[in-house]
Amino acid sequence: MAVYTRVASEDIATFLERYDVGTLRSAKGIAEGVENSNYLIETSKDRYILTLYEKRVDPADLPFFIALLDHLAERGLAVPPMIADKNGEKIQTLAGRTACLIRYLPGISLTQPTAEQALSAGRALGDMHLAAEDFSMQRANSMGPESWHALAEDIGADALQEISPGLADVIAITLADIDAHWPADAPKSPIHADLFPDNVLMLGDDVTGIIDFYFSCTDIRAYDLAVTHSAWCFSEDGAHFDKAISEALLDGYFSVIAREPQEFAADRLTLLARGAALRFLLSRAYDWIHTPPDALVTRKDPMAFAHRLAFYSDPARANIFAA
Amino acid sequence: MAVYTRVASEDIATFLERYDVGTLRSAKGIAEGVENSNYLIETSKDRYILTLYEKRVDPADLPFFIALLDHLAERGLAVPPMIADKNGEKIQTLAGRTACLIRYLPGISLTQPTAEQALSAGRALGDMHLAAEDFSMQRANSMGPESWHALAEDIGADALQEISPGLADVIAITLADIDAHWPADAPKSPIHADLFPDNVLMLGDDVTGIIDFYFSCTDIRAYDLAVTHSAWCFSEDGAHFDKAISEALLDGYFSVIAREPQEFAADRLTLLARGAALRFLLSRAYDWIHTPPDALVTRKDPMAFAHRLAFYSDPARANIFAA
Repeated sequence: MAVYTRVASEDIATFLERYDVGTLRSAKGIAEGVENSNYLIETSKDRYILTLYEKRVDPADLPFFIALLDHLAERGLAVPPMIADKNGEKIQTLAGRTACLIRYLPGISLTQPTAEQALSAGRALGDMHLAAEDFSMQRANSMGPESWHALAEDIGADALQEISPGLADVIAITLADIDAHWPADAPKSPIHADLFPDNVLMLGDDVTGIIDFYFSCTDIRAYDLAVTHSAWCFSEDGAHFDKAISEALLDGYFSVIAREPQEFAADRLTLLARGAALRFLLSRAYDWIHTPPDALVTRKDPMAFAHRLAFYSDPARANIFAA
Repeated sequence: MAVYTRVASEDIATFLERYDVGTLRSAKGIAEGVENSNYLIETSKDRYILTLYEKRVDPADLPFFIALLDHLAERGLAVPPMIADKNGEKIQTLAGRTACLIRYLPGISLTQPTAEQALSAGRALGDMHLAAEDFSMQRANSMGPESWHALAEDIGADALQEISPGLADVIAITLADIDAHWPADAPKSPIHADLFPDNVLMLGDDVTGIIDFYFSCTDIRAYDLAVTHSAWCFSEDGAHFDKAISEALLDGYFSVIAREPQEFAADRLTLLARGAALRFLLSRAYDWIHTPPDALVTRKDPMAFAHRLAFYSDPARANIFAA
C-alpha cells in the first residue's frame, strides 16, 4: 500500500554501487505489498525492485526465501530472485532496514481474473510445486493450523462477536473439525501459502511472475491449492463464488500435478479450504482490531473470508472439489 | 506520498486502448506528489506516468498546464507533456477522476543537491523562463501575494501562536512590507512557482526533467527565482543556509537570463524571497492545522519556512542577492 521507509535517491545510488547493476537512472517508491517498502529502480543496465523489510518479515527467514527463489528461478520459473552484490551478498542493510535488490518482472496484477487466467495460475502453482519438490530447506508455516487456536484466543470472543454475531461459534466449530480431521501427517513440501491474484503477474493469459514469497513455507501442497482456491474463486467481498474460475484453476493445477485420490480427495480439499478461509479470516480479524480505521494501511474486511468459510462449510457445496 | 485512487490493472489496460501507446505490461502505483494519484505505466512501446487528479488540481487549469508543457517541450526543454489519445484528446476521465497520460522522464529527484547540481538547476530555470517568454496563455497565481492576507486570517492568529509564539507578528510585519514594496507592476510571464529539488529530475549533474507544473502560472520571474532559492539553499528544516548552493543556483540562472539591474536588484530579490518563504510558511501552516497528525499525508513543518523567512529578513543577509 505505501512506502513506509523513505530513502533518499542519493542513498539508493550509493547502495547500488555495491552491485554490478549499472548506475541509477530512476527510483520510484511503489505502493505494492502491505508488508514492506518497495522502490522500482531503473539503472543504466536494467530494472529492479528494491525492498526494505518492515516488521512483518523476520530477516532470519530471508535465507529460506532467497534459496527457494533461486531454486525455482534455476528451474525456469518466473519468480523474482534476489540479486547478489559484488561480494555475493544478497541480504543488505539500508536506511536501518534489512534490504534486498530483486529482479524486476513485467506483468500486471489482476483484480478480476478470467477463467483462462485462472487456468494459467493453477498451472503455474502446479509448476511451482513440481519444481520445488527437491528443495531441501525447511521453514515451518508460522500461519499454519497450529497457530490458529492461539490467534483466535488472542483476538478474543468479544471482538469476534463485535465483528459479526455468531462468528466466535463458527470459528470454534471450524477449529474442532480441523483438530479432528486435519491431515497433519501428510507429506510436506515448499508452498507459496499466499497466492492471491495480486501475487501473480500476467500478460494476457500468460503468467509472467509469481511474487511475494514472504509466507512461503514447508506445508501440505493441497493446502496451498486450497489457499489459492479461496483467494481466486470469489468476489472480493466473498459474497459470490465463481464456478468457472474454480473449475479452471483446478483444471490448470491438475494438468501438472497428478491427482492422487487420497491427497486430493474432495472431503480433504474441503477441510483444507475451510482452514484456508479460517486462516485469512483470523489474520484479517487480528489486523482489523489492531489497526485504527484511519491508519496508513487499508484494513481488509475479515467478513470476506467468513463468507468463504460459510461457503466451504456448506455440505451442498461438497461437489466443488470432486474429481 | 501515496496512491489515493486505486485503479484496477484491467481498467488501466482498457484506458490505454484510447491511445496509440501499445499494450499494458506493468502498472505500479507510485508514491510521488502529495497532490495526485500516480501510476508508472510500462507498455509494449514505452513508459508513461498516469496521473489522476485529486482535489487540489482544478481540472479547469489543465489546459494552461498542458499548453505550457507542449510549448516548452517543443522548444526542447526536458518537461513531461501530456499524451494525446487517438482523437487528439489529452484530458480524460478514469475511475471518476480527471486523468492524463504523461511522458515518462528518467532521472532521480535529489534530496541533498550539490553546488554543481544547483548550478544546473538554476540554468534549467533560466532556460524555462526564456523558452516560456512567448507563451501567451495566462493563469493567475492562486498562491500569489494577493492570497496571503486571506490565508493568514483563515489560519488565525491563535493557531499561528500555537505553532510558534510570535509567528503571527512576524507574518503581520512581513505582509506589511510586502504590501508596501512588492513589485506588483513588474512584467509577468510563465513561472513554475514550485521548483523544489524533488521537482527536478537529474542524472549526475544534468537536469533530465522539470516536473510538477501544477502551480505554474503567470507571475514575476524573479519571484520564481526567489521561490527556487528558498527551496534549494537551506537544510530541509530551514536551520542551515548553504552559501555555495545559493551562489551556484544564482550563477546558473544568470548564465542564461540577463541580470537587469532593476528586475534583479538585491533588495527586490530579498523581498521576493521573504514572500516566497511566507507563501510556503502559510500553506504549510494551513495544512498543519487541517491535517490530523496520523493522516495518510505527511505534514510538512511550517517552521522550516519560518526559519527561512527570518533568514531573508535579517539585514545582515542582504548581500546574498548582491550581483
